[in-house]
Amino acid sequence: MYIRKSKLQYHAKPEKSNPIIARRLQEILGGQWGETTGMLAYTLQGWNTVGNEKYKDLLLDTGTEEMGHMEMLATMINDLLRDAPTDTIEELARNSDPATAAILGGMDPQHAFVNGLGAGLSDSNGNPWSANFIISSGNLLADMRFNVVRESQARLQVSRNFLQTEDKGVRDMLSYLMARETQHQLQFLKACEELEEKYGPVVPHGTQDLQKQGKEFTHTLYNFSEGEASQALEGETARDGNKFHYSSDPIMAGGEPDLTAAPEILRNTPPEDPSTAVEEGRRMLEGEQNTSK
Amino acid sequence: MYIRKSKLQYHAKPEKSNPIIARRLQEILGGQWGETTGMLAYTLQGWNTVGNEKYKDLLLDTGTEEMGHMEMLATMINDLLRDAPTDTIEELARNSDPATAAILGGMDPQHAFVNGLGAGLSDSNGNPWSANFIISSGNLLADMRFNVVRESQARLQVSRNFLQTEDKGVRDMLSYLMARETQHQLQFLKACEELEEKYGPVVPHGTQDLQKQGKEFTHTLYNFSEGEASQALEGETARDGNKFHYSSDPIMAGGEPDLTAAPEILRNTPPEDPSTAVEEGRRMLEGEQNTSK
Amino acid sequence: MYIRKSKLQYHAKPEKSNPIIARRLQEILGGQWGETTGMLAYTLQGWNTVGNEKYKDLLLDTGTEEMGHMEMLATMINDLLRDAPTDTIEELARNSDPATAAILGGMDPQHAFVNGLGAGLSDSNGNPWSANFIISSGNLLADMRFNVVRESQARLQVSRNFLQTEDKGVRDMLSYLMARETQHQLQFLKACEELEEKYGPVVPHGTQDLQKQGKEFTHTLYNFSEGEASQALEGETARDGNKFHYSSDPIMAGGEPDLTAAPEILRNTPPEDPSTAVEEGRRMLEGEQNTSK
Amino acid sequence: MYIRKSKLQYHAKPEKSNPIIARRLQEILGGQWGETTGMLAYTLQGWNTVGNEKYKDLLLDTGTEEMGHMEMLATMINDLLRDAPTDTIEELARNSDPATAAILGGMDPQHAFVNGLGAGLSDSNGNPWSANFIISSGNLLADMRFNVVRESQARLQVSRNFLQTEDKGVRDMLSYLMARETQHQLQFLKACEELEEKYGPVVPHGTQDLQKQGKEFTHTLYNFSEGEASQALEGETARDGNKFHYSSDPIMAGGEPDLTAAPEILRNTPPEDPSTAVEEGRRMLEGEQNTSK
Amino acid sequence: MYIRKSKLQYHAKPEKSNPIIARRLQEILGGQWGETTGMLAYTLQGWNTVGNEKYKDLLLDTGTEEMGHMEMLATMINDLLRDAPTDTIEELARNSDPATAAILGGMDPQHAFVNGLGAGLSDSNGNPWSANFIISSGNLLADMRFNVVRESQARLQVSRNFLQTEDKGVRDMLSYLMARETQHQLQFLKACEELEEKYGPVVPHGTQDLQKQGKEFTHTLYNFSEGEASQALEGETARDGNKFHYSSDPIMAGGEPDLTAAPEILRNTPPEDPSTAVEEGRRMLEGEQNTSK
Amino acid sequence: MYIRKSKLQYHAKPEKSNPIIARRLQEILGGQWGETTGMLAYTLQGWNTVGNEKYKDLLLDTGTEEMGHMEMLATMINDLLRDAPTDTIEELARNSDPATAAILGGMDPQHAFVNGLGAGLSDSNGNPWSANFIISSGNLLADMRFNVVRESQARLQVSRNFLQTEDKGVRDMLSYLMARETQHQLQFLKACEELEEKYGPVVPHGTQDLQKQGKEFTHTLYNFSEGEASQALEGETARDGNKFHYSSDPIMAGGEPDLTAAPEILRNTPPEDPSTAVEEGRRMLEGEQNTSK
Repeated sequence: MYIRKSKLQYHAKPEKSNPIIARRLQEILGGQWGETTGMLAYTLQGWNTVGNEKYKDLLLDTGTEEMGHMEMLATMINDLLRDAPTDTIEELARNSDPATAAILGGMDPQHAFVNGLGAGLSDSNGNPWSANFIISSGNLLADMRFNVVRESQARLQVSRNFLQTEDKGVRDMLSYLMARETQHQLQFLKACEELEEKYGPVVPHGTQDLQKQGKEFTHTLYNFSEGEASQALEGETARDGNKFHYSSDPIMAGGEPDLTAAPEILRNTPPEDPSTAVEEGRRMLEGEQNTSK
Repeated sequence: MYIRKSKLQYHAKPEKSNPIIARRLQEILGGQWGETTGMLAYTLQGWNTVGNEKYKDLLLDTGTEEMGHMEMLATMINDLLRDAPTDTIEELARNSDPATAAILGGMDPQHAFVNGLGAGLSDSNGNPWSANFIISSGNLLADMRFNVVRESQARLQVSRNFLQTEDKGVRDMLSYLMARETQHQLQFLKACEELEEKYGPVVPHGTQDLQKQGKEFTHTLYNFSEGEASQALEGETARDGNKFHYSSDPIMAGGEPDLTAAPEILRNTPPEDPSTAVEEGRRMLEGEQNTSK
Repeated sequence: MYIRKSKLQYHAKPEKSNPIIARRLQEILGGQWGETTGMLAYTLQGWNTVGNEKYKDLLLDTGTEEMGHMEMLATMINDLLRDAPTDTIEELARNSDPATAAILGGMDPQHAFVNGLGAGLSDSNGNPWSANFIISSGNLLADMRFNVVRESQARLQVSRNFLQTEDKGVRDMLSYLMARETQHQLQFLKACEELEEKYGPVVPHGTQDLQKQGKEFTHTLYNFSEGEASQALEGETARDGNKFHYSSDPIMAGGEPDLTAAPEILRNTPPEDPSTAVEEGRRMLEGEQNTSK
Repeated sequence: MYIRKSKLQYHAKPEKSNPIIARRLQEILGGQWGETTGMLAYTLQGWNTVGNEKYKDLLLDTGTEEMGHMEMLATMINDLLRDAPTDTIEELARNSDPATAAILGGMDPQHAFVNGLGAGLSDSNGNPWSANFIISSGNLLADMRFNVVRESQARLQVSRNFLQTEDKGVRDMLSYLMARETQHQLQFLKACEELEEKYGPVVPHGTQDLQKQGKEFTHTLYNFSEGEASQALEGETARDGNKFHYSSDPIMAGGEPDLTAAPEILRNTPPEDPSTAVEEGRRMLEGEQNTSK
Repeated sequence: MYIRKSKLQYHAKPEKSNPIIARRLQEILGGQWGETTGMLAYTLQGWNTVGNEKYKDLLLDTGTEEMGHMEMLATMINDLLRDAPTDTIEELARNSDPATAAILGGMDPQHAFVNGLGAGLSDSNGNPWSANFIISSGNLLADMRFNVVRESQARLQVSRNFLQTEDKGVRDMLSYLMARETQHQLQFLKACEELEEKYGPVVPHGTQDLQKQGKEFTHTLYNFSEGEASQALEGETARDGNKFHYSSDPIMAGGEPDLTAAPEILRNTPPEDPSTAVEEGRRMLEGEQNTSK
Repeated sequence: MYIRKSKLQYHAKPEKSNPIIARRLQEILGGQWGETTGMLAYTLQGWNTVGNEKYKDLLLDTGTEEMGHMEMLATMINDLLRDAPTDTIEELARNSDPATAAILGGMDPQHAFVNGLGAGLSDSNGNPWSANFIISSGNLLADMRFNVVRESQARLQVSRNFLQTEDKGVRDMLSYLMARETQHQLQFLKACEELEEKYGPVVPHGTQDLQKQGKEFTHTLYNFSEGEASQALEGETARDGNKFHYSSDPIMAGGEPDLTAAPEILRNTPPEDPSTAVEEGRRMLEGEQNTSK
């Protein structure tokens, strides 16, 4: 069960409006790696976690915090949109200056016409947030690794936004988000370390016997592209203690595909004379037993 | 530029047809974490990589290999579908037995009616593959971490499929895929190690000065959910050498959101008397200068 | 800012596992009208609301409650999946009985192979949740009406699920959800009443002067389909106090569309002789000034 | 069966071309709440309606009218695009002025490069129209409420577009659309009134006995967010004649979630010692009967 | 403007209910190549066509007819769903027989729980119809070719459904749809013939001078895959009267990609020493002029 | 199995950076008809082809070539983005000129903030590539026709881009792509000719007996739209040698839809007195046998 507190976790007030920054921040609110992704991924993983209370709690702590980050971003996007131009397009053209032209071109039209100058739940190109962006697999190491990626990509996007604005209010909030994403990267990396120590570095654990044995399969980089720069891996030590090999000429062990045709009833292009297919269809229409299919 | 070799990288021949397994394998071919995701993510990252030839080559080697894995899966799905029931639905009902009933319910109808008993590019629920599933950020550490996740989630799904079939042909191919995903997890983990050593564990590098300083921001887990199990993190050492802190009672530093209203022209619900909005609209219709907006 | 409480708002424990019910409940968790839609729609509307504290608070109360309902559903879906068959497909076929066949066909394969028998964030056909499902327009009456729909469609789906299971635990939770959806329908209907009273029944307020005047436009049902049953509306009183009219033969006031051709440079099919287009292209290649475009 | 008439329902001719307005109007043609949504939602509902001829006819009348509105918008978008700049990007840069810059930034590139300066079936950000936007539930009250929302959100968007252009032709058509959306809101509100009178205000009818009894469940607003502004609802009369209650401190009636682990074969992170999982996998490989799962 | 006639274009009454057939027919109503695709593609193309009245009219005739086909399918899907099992899942399990098991597994759960046993606007796997499926390019030859594909894929799917049911009512309607798709394939093929005769076989016309001259580029099949079976094309006559060539060994004319690094401000992985990036960030924070970027 | 060659198939180097062109080229890389669509459609069709080695090889040759074209486009997009403005938005506003304003508005913000000035796998509006764009049906004629469309729409878009830039490097590459798309259109047209000769012009073959006989169904254009311009088809010869007919007044052969109501348990709006529904629900709750459903 959840409770909302009235105060924000941190300040979210820009110095002034700027609809282009508002559009950019949509990526961080509703994009592939935005706060919505963090909130719903960690929370769903937390709800699905069985036992492992330490990690379950960590996931729920962080998922809930991201809900607060979503709120900060939505709040700031509102402020950034407040002075967006709402004159007629013709008036804007008559008085046009480059700055207005940039805003007209660069702001998200849905901010004005769909959301009434409020935040949407989409990215900087207006793509709606999608559960395609998240995973909850039941395997904590696989999912903690995903969470490290979410925090890495998000912090990268936040830093790019930070460096491309001078607004002290926007920078202050982004600076705070970066700090939190430092913590979140480090905590999820820590969870990965612990889980790797317990279950080994290869997900999923307990399945090494299920796979093709021999290091030519499990520890060899095949050179499928012409360059040999990746050969640098040769002899390096893998996380599981074994050495990597490099094979400059991958073997084709499988032979050529050798498919048999689908039944004629599907009207695929047949490998042979198609006339029988017509017969078959006619028989069916006439209610005959169709035995040859 | 790419060249196709006629032979498969490995065997891909089931012992017998089974349309339910075919549907399950679609997840591994065209699902969120399937081979298509690996192929297009690694390849696009490789094309976008500047300098760093060792990693560029590694990405292109592996992306190209995944193209071959897609081919193996598509080939096997064809074979698994060959004896799918194509009798009339009424005939199947008349002769129905539980095994046929399971197939009727459990196979993907698009395999028969859209793809002519061939492979599609969708997951086990028929969702089309989407570029929502991939990322190429320009930051190699962020992307290599994503690649580790791709291999982890994929190997997890492959092992689940392995353990839920007895078909020796399917198992043989899945066993091979698992071996390759062992290599790929280990190689991308290795790249992460090297990149972390060079740039530090927090993505992106060179931005530590941009964030809110003080370990209360960057190394503190806030307890946003009631349980205290996550407190176990307290005092543990983070990947960057610092200690984690734990704060059981997160501070609300931001005050309450305090928004001003959007211009009346947007017809949002106003905080005040709406009568002026009508006035404004009428003036515009009459061509008067609208100065109060 | 948000806080998670450890206890659920209500019981969420089925009598026994049933993966088909688990799949059905995904619709209520992650479908078009599910709890995720309620949570994110109301919450985003609440964050975007300016002034109107009574409604802002109502939206945030209810959005936060739905977060708790998501948790209840995710928890129950876990339990419903616990005894899902994980034998090999061949073993299941050997021992097959109709009940197992139904489960094999009717359960969501992603529950097993993607989510590890945990909840996903998708609907009963595996479509990922999408922000296409929500709206925050800035106009409270428009959005409160949406919220009434969300609660109506959700309660309809919940009741259908209630009536098609006998599991006392599932029924108990669904019964609770229905009760809450009664409250939520009634509260959002109340908000609509109040907002209609203040701003009039037609969204948006303050724009009646902007529209084509005359009741032949604003209060007339045009009979675009052959039947005349809809004529029953004639003479009925509309919410704004005026009478409805009925026009059995809609006027075509607009004339035929009369388009001019797009510039030839676009290589649309031209209305005239295409030879000039070739000329134009050749001139451009030769660096001539292209004046005729 | 449907017939197309050659003339438009109303004028659709702008004074002059303006590709930015063309992009904005895409929202009204192919966006979440656009005419396509109205056309397909009402029509599908109409086709699915059984008995209730008055409403079936109303739905089909209005759905068919929206098809004509789609045509008007597509026609106007063509005209608005006719003078879109098709010079080379370099030529535009050489002669650039702010107005051209705004158009370059603000027009939809797909209008030129995909649609040949014709209309697309997407919104103002280029998102394709999706059946995610519509519903046909079989319950007329639930669906009529949806239809009221469609008309409300659409009229809101149309008014925003009206107020942000001076083009008399565009305004004339938008003014007509607003008038029709006044009628459609009022007619669907009327249908809601009648259906509520017959079946009660809570969807679906006939299910009050299925829900948790007691007004603490069905008529109580729980205060899940800190503010108390929503307490204003206390004592107000709900649409069903009962009074609302307000509970400032929601009860957690459900206890903590208490999940059991999924079978080890799924390779979820186990709550206990994982060694048995390896055993299990090995046994399966060796063809042993797997009884412990 | 459009008018609906009350009668269907053709009979649409199954002999008896069958929810599995209902699900299959969703592919033909709302799938990638279904009637919705035909209706909206041809209609949008028709609206966008300038001049060329013969083709504009043909497109609008056929698009309008498809609207009637959608209606026939939606009507039949309703009938096919009428006796879908609505007992409790437990009751169905108790009395289960293979036929019921097949239905439980094979029917679309959204038909029951979302649509109230009415038609949806999605395909046989529940994917919502998407405007991703259609095109209107402004070039009639390109679009008429698309229309031929739509009719070809649709008739293929209809025939597969025809052959896999014995229901005389379903067969009668599908037989009619196949006949109409014969006409539509032939009419669009005819339009292609005429447009090819006028503009040449290569879309778009009037651009042959814009492309790399020399038959080694325009009439040569490069052998990018190992097999030589495609060499059969060598010497065959292309639609434009020229002969095809075959090149067994494709030339790599382009050299290796040679990218320069993106600006450091983006925090991509740099090719050189990253220390300067930190400097740059610090300078920006301190308000210094950032000149080196 | 696939191998990557280090060199590009053709030059891909622009004269100078231009982020607006980069955005436009995304349509050709990752849009509905872009190279990704070609690569994955032809390749999947090739993998699924049984027998018919000539066409299987042709598909795999061309699919593999498109992989190389994707690489050329991704490479060029990188170069076109290299000088994209990365100053702060405020700095850009201070120094703003129309050219910069156009870039700010016209470039894809995800290029900078998500992809680090590298290529994405999306179209010119940022929509992610989707497998909705491709088909592999098992019927070669249906699919070869699709492939002709892919090449036609792609070449149309390439020519539009060619004509709207002066950059010699961009033009050189686009000119090469156009030449290859000439070859690919012609080769797929050739395949269509051969397949039509063998199987007849109507897809699928062998099903003429399954359809409603009589030329009033199979060779008649029905005039569903008021204009008579399409009557020009009357008497023309169809590809199968028969003459077309024209019917100016389409017959409604099907009668009015006549649906029966869904079971009351679904809580659809009933055609009759709803009181029984309440009864039914109460009985179920009380555990009575529900016989009337």
